[in-house]
Amino acid sequence: VATTDDGTSTPGQAPIDPSILRQEIGEQPEVLARVLDRERANVARLSIRWRRADIQYLTIVARGSSDNAASYAKYMFGALADLSVVLAAPSLYTLYGAEPKLAHSIVLAISQAGESPDILAVVESAKKQRVPTVAITNSPNSTLAKTADDVILLHAGEERSVAATKTFTASIGAFALLGAAWLGAKISYLDELLAMPELMYKVLNVEHGVKSLASTLAGLKHTAVIGRGFSYSVAFEIALKLKELAYVAAEPYSSADFLHGPVAMVDENLHALVIAPTGRAHANSLQFAQAIRNKGGRLIGISDSKEFLELADMGIRVPEAPEWLSPLLTVVPGQLLALHLARAAGYDVDRPRGLTKVTKTI
Amino acid sequence: VATTDDGTSTPGQAPIDPSILRQEIGEQPEVLARVLDRERANVARLSIRWRRADIQYLTIVARGSSDNAASYAKYMFGALADLSVVLAAPSLYTLYGAEPKLAHSIVLAISQAGESPDILAVVESAKKQRVPTVAITNSPNSTLAKTADDVILLHAGEERSVAATKTFTASIGAFALLGAAWLGAKISYLDELLAMPELMYKVLNVEHGVKSLASTLAGLKHTAVIGRGFSYSVAFEIALKLKELAYVAAEPYSSADFLHGPVAMVDENLHALVIAPTGRAHANSLQFAQAIRNKGGRLIGISDSKEFLELADMGIRVPEAPEWLSPLLTVVPGQLLALHLARAAGYDVDRPRGLTKVTKTI
Repeated sequence: VATTDDGTSTPGQAPIDPSILRQEIGEQPEVLARVLDRERANVARLSIRWRRADIQYLTIVARGSSDNAASYAKYMFGALADLSVVLAAPSLYTLYGAEPKLAHSIVLAISQAGESPDILAVVESAKKQRVPTVAITNSPNSTLAKTADDVILLHAGEERSVAATKTFTASIGAFALLGAAWLGAKISYLDELLAMPELMYKVLNVEHGVKSLASTLAGLKHTAVIGRGFSYSVAFEIALKLKELAYVAAEPYSSADFLHGPVAMVDENLHALVIAPTGRAHANSLQFAQAIRNKGGRLIGISDSKEFLELADMGIRVPEAPEWLSPLLTVVPGQLLALHLARAAGYDVDRPRGLTKVTKTI
Repeated sequence: VATTDDGTSTPGQAPIDPSILRQEIGEQPEVLARVLDRERANVARLSIRWRRADIQYLTIVARGSSDNAASYAKYMFGALADLSVVLAAPSLYTLYGAEPKLAHSIVLAISQAGESPDILAVVESAKKQRVPTVAITNSPNSTLAKTADDVILLHAGEERSVAATKTFTASIGAFALLGAAWLGAKISYLDELLAMPELMYKVLNVEHGVKSLASTLAGLKHTAVIGRGFSYSVAFEIALKLKELAYVAAEPYSSADFLHGPVAMVDENLHALVIAPTGRAHANSLQFAQAIRNKGGRLIGISDSKEFLELADMGIRVPEAPEWLSPLLTVVPGQLLALHLARAAGYDVDRPRGLTKVTKTI
């Protein structure tokens, strides 16, 4: 792997950026490998138990970056396993004292620190309703881990950076593992997933290109971030990183929703960052890109498709992967872009203003 | 009602703004009255039939402004009727050929024109699965109306403005009517709802204040729009109008999600427009407002609470209403703000760039 040109993964050389954030971005392949290795048997056991029950729905409860991982799960379980996913609204429980019915459902609660009262309220309600609950968390001793029936650990190590990166991709990995286990006999899903840590190492090599993109984009104030299907969650996660780290007003959309209104904002000053992996949503991404170009907007692509990247004004090429796993790769250039835009503007990426690591909301 | 100072609703006087958009904003009270009057018996009949079935979930499918109405329904049915709501992802059906399971669910499809192929795909799948389907539409002869088992009409008249206003509040009214019927014996819900058209007439009187707010805010490029619980949908709808009409990069959030990351962007240049009706979410809104002020952000309030408006840098006071119906009032100042910001910038509000009235997405 050609990493020597930027030193990304060559021990002994100075890292491309000295921040904790950059270090944790770089840890993502090994964290993914670890969660797949250590949770595989646990997840297989859970999925066998669930298949015996009458499970028709998944209910997922999350906040912040974890909510973006939940959105990945909504598309993944929907597209591959024909499951309908409810993204729970915690305020129904905490502000309105309601307890929406969860029959025929499993509740998956994702929280890195596992202490947010609103997330816990949903799990408590599910337990009262005798619905299976699973905590997906990085904190084995958290209240969430102790409250839920079962736990899937993320094995990400301490996340010191305020902006979540490795716990996001570890959560995607945990969901993908659940999906592969659910699909059972179709064993190729698991094989595809187990190949991903290697591809994640490779995608870190985009950093040189991303740094140069960041200097072209320096001073960027506003951008739309577009993704559809599996990439919808990636658009939301990249937009969140751009906001948290580089204070760019980055607005995430599905291409379909964008065409239902916000497209009005497109002019030669608007950048659209489009997540466009090859796969079932790709023809749609190409059409969307053409529509934006026709309106005079500027297009930045994150894609493994040569055709798409030729259409874009600026682009970052990622390795090819099965579409359902592409978020593990396409999110990485976005994380790095947020980092380098922040650097170019002189911001402290390890201490974004106004943020604390553990946010407890009700 | 003191409408003569701005001519809002006095026949014979020149209207405050000659656009089709302004006319349709003004029609909202009568449209709401019409949908309540004409659909009440139909909705009561539907809800009796559903209560006999084993309904545990609602699945709602929508795009654009209708998607924001769907988000209202998620909170309303959750908070008042303990129902879990799935917001369907149409691309699962159209791009991935999946058919998520819909057992124990009713499918509500909202589409003003009723011709969007992705919305229709979800309804077709529900029919195959023998799940009850209802179209909520402004077009009685549309494909959607003909495909669904039942139809709730919005009676909004032709919506000529590209930016939806009266069909949005009519959709909220239709959902509220369904909620009131579902709650059945608790008859006060229906009484509360039937009082809303009168309050909507009154809220139009905010226009004078909104116009002055718009001139203070002229040139606004970016704002966060915050709402929680019932007001979450209002934040999204107002943000959409600001984007469509005034090309303001308006980003909607729940206050809880905002504190999990985007709060990093708060400084003396960031405006936060907060939808803060009195009710169960209000203490939370007050805390949030205080947090934003402490970080030096500028606060604009839409509220019936004197306490909240005193905390805000700028505010628009709306009439008091039950919290579950407050979106019918709080959205109106937002619609008017988008209109007058657009006017102040010299934009044509009846022809926003890049938008067409009927958007067909797959």
